[in-house]
Amino acid sequence: MGANRRELSLLPERKIRSATASDWPAIWKIFRSVVQRGDTYAFSPELDEKSALKIWFAPGAQVFVTDAERRVVGTFFVKPNQPGLGSHVANAGFMVDPEMHGAGIGRAMGEYALAWAKQQGYQAMQFNFVVSTNTGAVALWKKLGFTIIGTIPRGFHHTQLSYVDVYVMHREL
Amino acid sequence: MGANRRELSLLPERKIRSATASDWPAIWKIFRSVVQRGDTYAFSPELDEKSALKIWFAPGAQVFVTDAERRVVGTFFVKPNQPGLGSHVANAGFMVDPEMHGAGIGRAMGEYALAWAKQQGYQAMQFNFVVSTNTGAVALWKKLGFTIIGTIPRGFHHTQLSYVDVYVMHREL
Repeated sequence: MGANRRELSLLPERKIRSATASDWPAIWKIFRSVVQRGDTYAFSPELDEKSALKIWFAPGAQVFVTDAERRVVGTFFVKPNQPGLGSHVANAGFMVDPEMHGAGIGRAMGEYALAWAKQQGYQAMQFNFVVSTNTGAVALWKKLGFTIIGTIPRGFHHTQLSYVDVYVMHREL
Repeated sequence: MGANRRELSLLPERKIRSATASDWPAIWKIFRSVVQRGDTYAFSPELDEKSALKIWFAPGAQVFVTDAERRVVGTFFVKPNQPGLGSHVANAGFMVDPEMHGAGIGRAMGEYALAWAKQQGYQAMQFNFVVSTNTGAVALWKKLGFTIIGTIPRGFHHTQLSYVDVYVMHREL
């Protein structure tokens, strides 16, 4: 109930838009807080800012941010998962300000990413590395139509749980 | 029989070693001939030499070549499949001079890569993109202990066969 109410209260003022260079400090703040937890992304928890920038704004990636309550509360990118003969399948990565979890931001960004990717002509979207213990993300992607097409045994070294499985998830567009 | 005889005749003079900058012209010749076929790697068949060099000698990759008949007949790299908390799983890519198929070069390189990766402390090896119609490669990796842990539906745009499935393959070390 609480989460739903918060989500509803956010909806009118939430906006997804293309990121610009001036968004980087806000994106980096989210990136750092997400990665430091060491429970969802493979990136080293001590990754430096310059490397993070290169990763998030990779060549060929379209980066977006979500504004709410007059600040950036989430970010995601969409890019080809493979070059050339595999570039009809999109990849995407999502990060939400940990303080804003449960407000529906991840879901809104996921839906936006899927619609945008389809519009761009991508035929499918694939996530290569969804940590199995990240149950919120796994549940969200399933709700949005993704299926687990593969499991990497002990593919992630979780900072609390040691080695845990990783899912490859996929959805046609 | 012919392939076996050729393999035996090559064995004494075949040698796998670390690649150096001076090997690049020979590696590029193989890379180009493999990629131009458009049936095994996602890289654009028209990929330029500079991009190929960046891909094959990626940061963190250890590159090897196989010499036989006094020239480079194959090349492969081993690198972490993910950064940081996923870097205990290796990734590798292999290319054999198309004129030398059936001579056991791929198998020798695969075995070397597995042994080397284990020695480096990797816990597993994963291939993210084995084209399902590349039956020779799929059979070889199965012989070397890999299993298909996932299938990407129509993940590869084969130049002859249009869209075909792609396997994610994995082996503990």
